[in-house]
Amino acid sequence: MRTLEWDSSSNKLKIIDQRILPSKLAYLHLSSHEEVAESIRNMAVRGAPAIGVAAAYGIVLAALNSPANTIEGVRKAVIEAKRILATARPTAVNLFWALDRMLKVAEQDYLDAESLKNALLSEANRMADEDVKTNMAMARIGAELIEDGDVIIHHCNTGALATVDWGTALGAIRLAHKQGKRIHVLVDETRPRLQGARLTAWELKQYGIPFDLISDNAAGFFLKNGQATKVFFGADRVARNGDVVNKIGSYMLALAAHDNHVPVYSVFPLSTVDLRIERGELIPIEERPPAEVLEISLQGQRATPEGATARNPAFDITPHRLINAWVTEAKIIHPPFYLNLPDAVKSAAELAE
Amino acid sequence: MRTLEWDSSSNKLKIIDQRILPSKLAYLHLSSHEEVAESIRNMAVRGAPAIGVAAAYGIVLAALNSPANTIEGVRKAVIEAKRILATARPTAVNLFWALDRMLKVAEQDYLDAESLKNALLSEANRMADEDVKTNMAMARIGAELIEDGDVIIHHCNTGALATVDWGTALGAIRLAHKQGKRIHVLVDETRPRLQGARLTAWELKQYGIPFDLISDNAAGFFLKNGQATKVFFGADRVARNGDVVNKIGSYMLALAAHDNHVPVYSVFPLSTVDLRIERGELIPIEERPPAEVLEISLQGQRATPEGATARNPAFDITPHRLINAWVTEAKIIHPPFYLNLPDAVKSAAELAE
Repeated sequence: MRTLEWDSSSNKLKIIDQRILPSKLAYLHLSSHEEVAESIRNMAVRGAPAIGVAAAYGIVLAALNSPANTIEGVRKAVIEAKRILATARPTAVNLFWALDRMLKVAEQDYLDAESLKNALLSEANRMADEDVKTNMAMARIGAELIEDGDVIIHHCNTGALATVDWGTALGAIRLAHKQGKRIHVLVDETRPRLQGARLTAWELKQYGIPFDLISDNAAGFFLKNGQATKVFFGADRVARNGDVVNKIGSYMLALAAHDNHVPVYSVFPLSTVDLRIERGELIPIEERPPAEVLEISLQGQRATPEGATARNPAFDITPHRLINAWVTEAKIIHPPFYLNLPDAVKSAAELAE
Repeated sequence: MRTLEWDSSSNKLKIIDQRILPSKLAYLHLSSHEEVAESIRNMAVRGAPAIGVAAAYGIVLAALNSPANTIEGVRKAVIEAKRILATARPTAVNLFWALDRMLKVAEQDYLDAESLKNALLSEANRMADEDVKTNMAMARIGAELIEDGDVIIHHCNTGALATVDWGTALGAIRLAHKQGKRIHVLVDETRPRLQGARLTAWELKQYGIPFDLISDNAAGFFLKNGQATKVFFGADRVARNGDVVNKIGSYMLALAAHDNHVPVYSVFPLSTVDLRIERGELIPIEERPPAEVLEISLQGQRATPEGATARNPAFDITPHRLINAWVTEAKIIHPPFYLNLPDAVKSAAELAE
């Protein structure tokens, strides 16, 4: 089962409700673009690649649900749905990239409204399939960096759950394990939403990959005493200068790795690189509800005092100087990152300018 | 009310049960050295200065409970209690320092067993009173480093709860607030035991000091974008070369501060400096039960999969190069730390060698 899948019998988007894992594997059946936007916002579906494809299906739902029977009417519904879906989360570029791609399809010429709707569904399906293929390519390339005996610190969840299937950074780890390399993963629990403790640990158990959970703040301990040999994480948006915006905590993890000469690899599809943005500081960072930090219990007792307030930035910026290499579907890219990008990516960006 | 207090009517050690805060302010009445050792081990009492004084009272309890009516008999009970108390936690030096001090008292000459018991109780009471005075001195010196408008990131709990009263790093913050300086504290929640979320937030509320809780891994975000101006934490043991062993996460926090030119201050009594130990890597680091990492719930749901394992180092080593200054009861000490120690501390160490 994929993290998200189009159900053609009911014309709904079926997703794994990631808020409920690991206690239960439950599904949601989303029937409107508003429901898709809400599921992205509340993180029932999460992970930059997964929310991109979910948003694409949100556009499909808006088109199918539109009462309009003219091409112009459906286009209007699509544009309105795009506006709503684009507000769901601000940081990961995949959301905007997917919506732009769907809008381009909507702007083409069609015989009738039905053909436009079909074209939108085909494009969303194509994006879902491409995502899996891209992940497999990244896994093959990323697994080359993983050696027998490696102890890998992994941040957040970048597995099958974060994508349509297979995963980015965790996909490379999964493939290396399948190749017979003996590896051990130190799983950052990834406060506040605990994607590591809840989702990555759950996935690693399915795959039979040995791991230990750690508090995020313990990564430095293992890096410093030589017990960790590599750091892998994903990316939500990458700036032209190579700065990587990823789940909160990535920056401190990369710093600790760098301080101990342990390599840091960021694994993401090339669509995550936002060449319009010069450097990390210019990428909008989402600040999520304080309740996500405050609603934590230890052994059944609420751990924060009544009336306490919290700050909750969901992402941070890892400067490019702390990243040893990008793993993309095309190749491993070393610094200087922009210069080493595939030519096709650079010329597409120059054309757009 | 002090974190721990000798109850002379019942001859018991009364402590705040820090495992239950902030839901409830509850007390334990400890009547044997075994109970004291267990309360240190399970962190009902915690904080390097507090566990030192608690252990001293553990020695008193062993002497009072001893059926022996000879000086030798009481001494034997004291030595046996010291052995047990010394195994309670391995990292903070205050525990061993306090036990050694009590043993020295036990080794002196007395008229009878009763006089020895009285001397032990007096010494433990003296240590408790000294701790408060030392904390007040550190607070006065540390508060000088805090400026109007500062936003201070604070790790773990170093307040009244971590000491007999008043606190170390948090004591300085508390005094600066009392002096009328407008300060804001970003409170590292401090996984896995959440001493920041549970205890520091609770104390700051009592004192009326404005704060926000943050995930430990978010500190780098605030340091990088200029929203935090200083970092304060305590110390559990300090090596001769200036390396500071403190609550897990201190190293990554200090790294992030250093990377952004934000000063890091470690506040501790001079008794925390262990001049017999050359460098941080030689200090024993306690690894606590995995359950402390695994038993975490979000909104009532257990967040880790059945059967998951965890690693749980309780402390880490912050290299001296990342510490801007020590705040002690004697003075602020800048690098090179050993050279700048008060002469009395250095000569005592040389005598001991």
